[in-house]
Amino acid sequence: MTTNPILAATFLETSGIPLVIGCAVIGLIVAFALIRSILKVKIDDPRMRQIAGAIEEGAKAYLNRQLRAISAIAVVLFGILCWKPGMHSALGFLIGAVCSLAAGFIGMRVAVLANVRTAQAATRGRHPALVVAFNGGAVTGLLVVGLALLSVTLFYTGIKIWIGEDQAVRSLVGLALGSSLISVFARLGGGIYTKAADVGADLVGKIESNLDEDDPRNPATVADNVGDNVGDCAGMAADVFETYAVSLIGAVLIAALTLKSFPNAVLFPFILGGISILGAILGIFFVNVSKLAPSTALMTGVGVSGVVSAIALWPVTQSLFEGGARVGDVVYSAENIFGASLIGLLMTGLVVLITNYYTSTHYNPVRKIARASETGHATNIIAGIAMGMHATALPVICIAAAIWGSYSLAGLYGISVSVMAMLSMAGIIISLDAFGPITDNAGGIAVMSGLPKEVRAITDDLDAVGNTMKAVTKGYAIASAGLAAVVLFGSYVEDLRAHLEATGKMIAGALDFSLNDPKVIIGLFLGGLLPCMFSAFSMDAVGKAAGAVVEEVRRQIKAKPGILKGTDTPEYGTCVDIVTKAALREMVLPAMLPILFVVVVAAVPALGKTVLGGVLVGTIVTGLFLGLSMTSSGGAWDNAKKYIEEGNHGGKHSPAHAAAVTGDTVGDPYKDTSGPAINPMIKVVNIVAILVIPIFF
Amino acid sequence: MTTNPILAATFLETSGIPLVIGCAVIGLIVAFALIRSILKVKIDDPRMRQIAGAIEEGAKAYLNRQLRAISAIAVVLFGILCWKPGMHSALGFLIGAVCSLAAGFIGMRVAVLANVRTAQAATRGRHPALVVAFNGGAVTGLLVVGLALLSVTLFYTGIKIWIGEDQAVRSLVGLALGSSLISVFARLGGGIYTKAADVGADLVGKIESNLDEDDPRNPATVADNVGDNVGDCAGMAADVFETYAVSLIGAVLIAALTLKSFPNAVLFPFILGGISILGAILGIFFVNVSKLAPSTALMTGVGVSGVVSAIALWPVTQSLFEGGARVGDVVYSAENIFGASLIGLLMTGLVVLITNYYTSTHYNPVRKIARASETGHATNIIAGIAMGMHATALPVICIAAAIWGSYSLAGLYGISVSVMAMLSMAGIIISLDAFGPITDNAGGIAVMSGLPKEVRAITDDLDAVGNTMKAVTKGYAIASAGLAAVVLFGSYVEDLRAHLEATGKMIAGALDFSLNDPKVIIGLFLGGLLPCMFSAFSMDAVGKAAGAVVEEVRRQIKAKPGILKGTDTPEYGTCVDIVTKAALREMVLPAMLPILFVVVVAAVPALGKTVLGGVLVGTIVTGLFLGLSMTSSGGAWDNAKKYIEEGNHGGKHSPAHAAAVTGDTVGDPYKDTSGPAINPMIKVVNIVAILVIPIFF
Repeated sequence: MTTNPILAATFLETSGIPLVIGCAVIGLIVAFALIRSILKVKIDDPRMRQIAGAIEEGAKAYLNRQLRAISAIAVVLFGILCWKPGMHSALGFLIGAVCSLAAGFIGMRVAVLANVRTAQAATRGRHPALVVAFNGGAVTGLLVVGLALLSVTLFYTGIKIWIGEDQAVRSLVGLALGSSLISVFARLGGGIYTKAADVGADLVGKIESNLDEDDPRNPATVADNVGDNVGDCAGMAADVFETYAVSLIGAVLIAALTLKSFPNAVLFPFILGGISILGAILGIFFVNVSKLAPSTALMTGVGVSGVVSAIALWPVTQSLFEGGARVGDVVYSAENIFGASLIGLLMTGLVVLITNYYTSTHYNPVRKIARASETGHATNIIAGIAMGMHATALPVICIAAAIWGSYSLAGLYGISVSVMAMLSMAGIIISLDAFGPITDNAGGIAVMSGLPKEVRAITDDLDAVGNTMKAVTKGYAIASAGLAAVVLFGSYVEDLRAHLEATGKMIAGALDFSLNDPKVIIGLFLGGLLPCMFSAFSMDAVGKAAGAVVEEVRRQIKAKPGILKGTDTPEYGTCVDIVTKAALREMVLPAMLPILFVVVVAAVPALGKTVLGGVLVGTIVTGLFLGLSMTSSGGAWDNAKKYIEEGNHGGKHSPAHAAAVTGDTVGDPYKDTSGPAINPMIKVVNIVAILVIPIFF
Repeated sequence: MTTNPILAATFLETSGIPLVIGCAVIGLIVAFALIRSILKVKIDDPRMRQIAGAIEEGAKAYLNRQLRAISAIAVVLFGILCWKPGMHSALGFLIGAVCSLAAGFIGMRVAVLANVRTAQAATRGRHPALVVAFNGGAVTGLLVVGLALLSVTLFYTGIKIWIGEDQAVRSLVGLALGSSLISVFARLGGGIYTKAADVGADLVGKIESNLDEDDPRNPATVADNVGDNVGDCAGMAADVFETYAVSLIGAVLIAALTLKSFPNAVLFPFILGGISILGAILGIFFVNVSKLAPSTALMTGVGVSGVVSAIALWPVTQSLFEGGARVGDVVYSAENIFGASLIGLLMTGLVVLITNYYTSTHYNPVRKIARASETGHATNIIAGIAMGMHATALPVICIAAAIWGSYSLAGLYGISVSVMAMLSMAGIIISLDAFGPITDNAGGIAVMSGLPKEVRAITDDLDAVGNTMKAVTKGYAIASAGLAAVVLFGSYVEDLRAHLEATGKMIAGALDFSLNDPKVIIGLFLGGLLPCMFSAFSMDAVGKAAGAVVEEVRRQIKAKPGILKGTDTPEYGTCVDIVTKAALREMVLPAMLPILFVVVVAAVPALGKTVLGGVLVGTIVTGLFLGLSMTSSGGAWDNAKKYIEEGNHGGKHSPAHAAAVTGDTVGDPYKDTSGPAINPMIKVVNIVAILVIPIFF
């Protein structure tokens, strides 16, 4: 940058928002270009087309029904929000909800396009298949990030111009709630769907009837593959959309509440998001042209994206924070703000590396679980649970260090910048994450349509890479959700302060939230309870829905003995239907739990705002540990099974393998239902708390 | 009470301590009388004598070696304490450690006397067996409570007379550390021992060689029975000794720090303890003469004990708090203090009932797990884990309500009184708890010495009752530990305040521990990590030690094929030896972890006292949830297996039973190693924090 920094600052201040919108639009354009490149792969085999069609149809049917189920609840909440805090928040809620739903739909649509084409590309070799699957993921990544940045930016700017800055900031909380609520439903509904189908298919198929994964004779096979799309793709896309939007909104809230006199502080998180989209595009380009081995190519792509974003960020930060932002006696310099951003980028890398260590077949933790499988089911489970607990240590220490570092650099705003920097990497990270279910489905389609063995070897290989990527990005998702929730708690306190001052209710010590106050301890206990209850209900839900699948599969096999011999076709549709209904029924209670919990705590006079503060933090603390340990255990169990299937400890069909299948099945709801659903849950709790401030306090 | 309350108050003030000592001595005398009654049962069968002798020998050998291992660490800590805070605390540490060790020894000694005599008494019928087993437990209960009350009272009074009140209160923290440290070691060492032997014996015996529980052909059978004594009896006795001593000390600390002008506040918790010993004796008497069914008799015994204590407590409270205790502008009346005590007694009843619901074969939770076993190992595990999470809700809500209620009545002192009231029930509660391992061992001895089937039916029946009692008292132990830890955190804050004021280092906000301070959030995260790490290490330890047992059993069966045919005797001694060494080796790391963690946080300048405050509370929050869910899951898995063995879902040797055995095995380290060891751990963390105040701050 040779331009005069002051000129650059003026330029950014006036044109910053249009530039951010430009970056988001570029992201969307690249995404559509990638869709065209995927569509160029022509599908030869009519059988492949038919199976892919069945999967697509099941996924669409589920999402349509989910839409109707959620709409009813969303309309009620919309009505309440129109009453309080008002129409703009309600409008924000609507936009957040619609965009989050759209992100889920897009994730699913692209995945069902990409999975069959990945299988097709695998007939031409490993690299073409890798590129199609990765680009499928990249489309979701770019669309989710582009959509999130665009919707928040346009809504914020629109309300700001229309009514004013203050109302714009407040209404963003409505947008956050809309996206979070949809995200909890999508994560839970999709998570219950995918794991009920998976567990149900495995229990009868693998264990009772000795069928392999994705065997077309298993009546639950199509439901299982639909599940990958509605859970791992649609659910995940809605979840990351939400975390991105909420992190951006959190940063804007903190900037507006604590750095009122420095408008560039509000602008900065938007610019950070815009730059990172360009970084993600370069990372995606790198993976497309690189000739490295699959997992190395993907990891290097993330590195490229992070480094490019960091380099581009420095001159921008320098321009926007020229002279520093002043809060009371403290000045946050450009260096401080850039440092906080770097902490966020670094955290992404560290958490990815740490989760990779705990869940990849190349390292000791997974191998220890595989070894423990030799002495039976129970020791496999004990080893996996212990490993999940171990796996919480390093991420939590990193999170603590990130909070300490970014707070030292720039206070609460520093933490929020660091979270936004972490989330700005979502574009490339989702590309990795969505890669997993696409390759998983590609493998399923390859088996079901009887493609040759070599092709299946390629899809299997990519599936194993996708498995690790999925586990790795889950660590990222929960760590960033934990940090984002800390920022939201800060917003709760600042917003409560503003409200109490405005209404003349401020009394000394009202915002202390001191651990010496038993009400705070009570809040921490009650809040800590929430993730436990939430996980318990969601695990129960998977168990119940899987039980329904088991019964249906058993019924079909009994009614048509020809199914197992391959002479009769199973009715895939009834299984899809059963899981759809069960998932929608079972998601309601756990999804409503955090909202009702917060409202009850706020409404009961003996509890109130102080207990609620404790509840918010208590939820973050136990939620973080539960989320981290569940996703790590689940990923490690899954890969311990894969490691044994590679021929270790007796290989497939050995007693050790049977034990590892048990671990994998226990890990299914851990890593794909309860664990990831905790991410949006801990944010919903904090957002609802901010929204109820004017109603109850 | 028709006496003049003022006269009574004067009488209690002067003679209170001697009366408390009198009550403790009465408790000890009754305990010795009960031992004599147990010893009256003569053992006819030389084979029974021989097996009981082998178990006794193994248990003694283990405890002796454990003593040596702990002594080395204790001597180092004694040296450090002599340096700081000084000789009196070091002396307290020594007394606490010796008494806690003694409690463990006594628990084990009485159990090995009672188990064989219970088997003998079972030849005469169910009631004589019940009485012998219960009285064995009651001896431990009365000795532990009597010893704890006596040691704290004598030490406190001695130092008070010798040097002064202030020093007496400070030195009590040393006593608390001594008892807590030993308790962590005893719980961990004993817990690893018992579960390594149990899991190891089950894995090879039940699963590989199709042997029944306690089959004398299994080389690990004696080690398994030794484990019941060193884990469930010695470990548990040391643990409850510690909780009792620490709760009493916590109440004395809070009284001395916050109610300086009202000396009766210090006296009250001692008197509460004294009265409850008399209540426990009456409860024990009731069980001995009652003709009710076993579980009803035991539960009613607890009720009798609680009601008697409550009735006797009212006139005493009225006398001691005549006119009320004044703190600033607030007056705590006798009614308030009595109310806080009642909350503690009520909590005991509620927690016992709640845990009973979640772990007894008569209710839905256990039956749900049994039902889930029909679809295999994985669904059994998922159902058990989900159930454990559900089981945290009611106890945590009760704890929150107890904190709220007792704090409203009498501030922090009210909470400490409520905890002490809860712990004052320990005498009768341990009688139930120790009943479990005694009947378990009695069953083992009955099988191994070939007693007739009718006798085995009686011991089996009592064993099932003992199983529920064990589970129920674990809920009590962790709930009371959580409450006691909250009181200790209060002591940390008050002591830190006194220290900072005395050294002139007090600055504004130094004791806020506000959730708005990122250091507190960092502390909560780091503290939350501690129970996770602790559980992970202790579960690993069981896995490793069990693996060593498995290898040894496999080696023996291979070397002497006659063992399985019953023509060759296995070498029980080598298994006992292997588990002994493994348990002692593996207990060191997890036991030292909490101590080192606190010292590091206190010593690193960037962390310090504020982060440490967060650490203490974070440890309590996640510790409480982990402890509750692990002990509940474990108990429920165990009883789900028993429920299937009663003939449900296909009964013994059905596929559902195999799945239930897996759950039971996973539950073993949950309920008997990691879960209960969290109790002393969360207190050690808080006590060490109090002790390091003068060193680092």
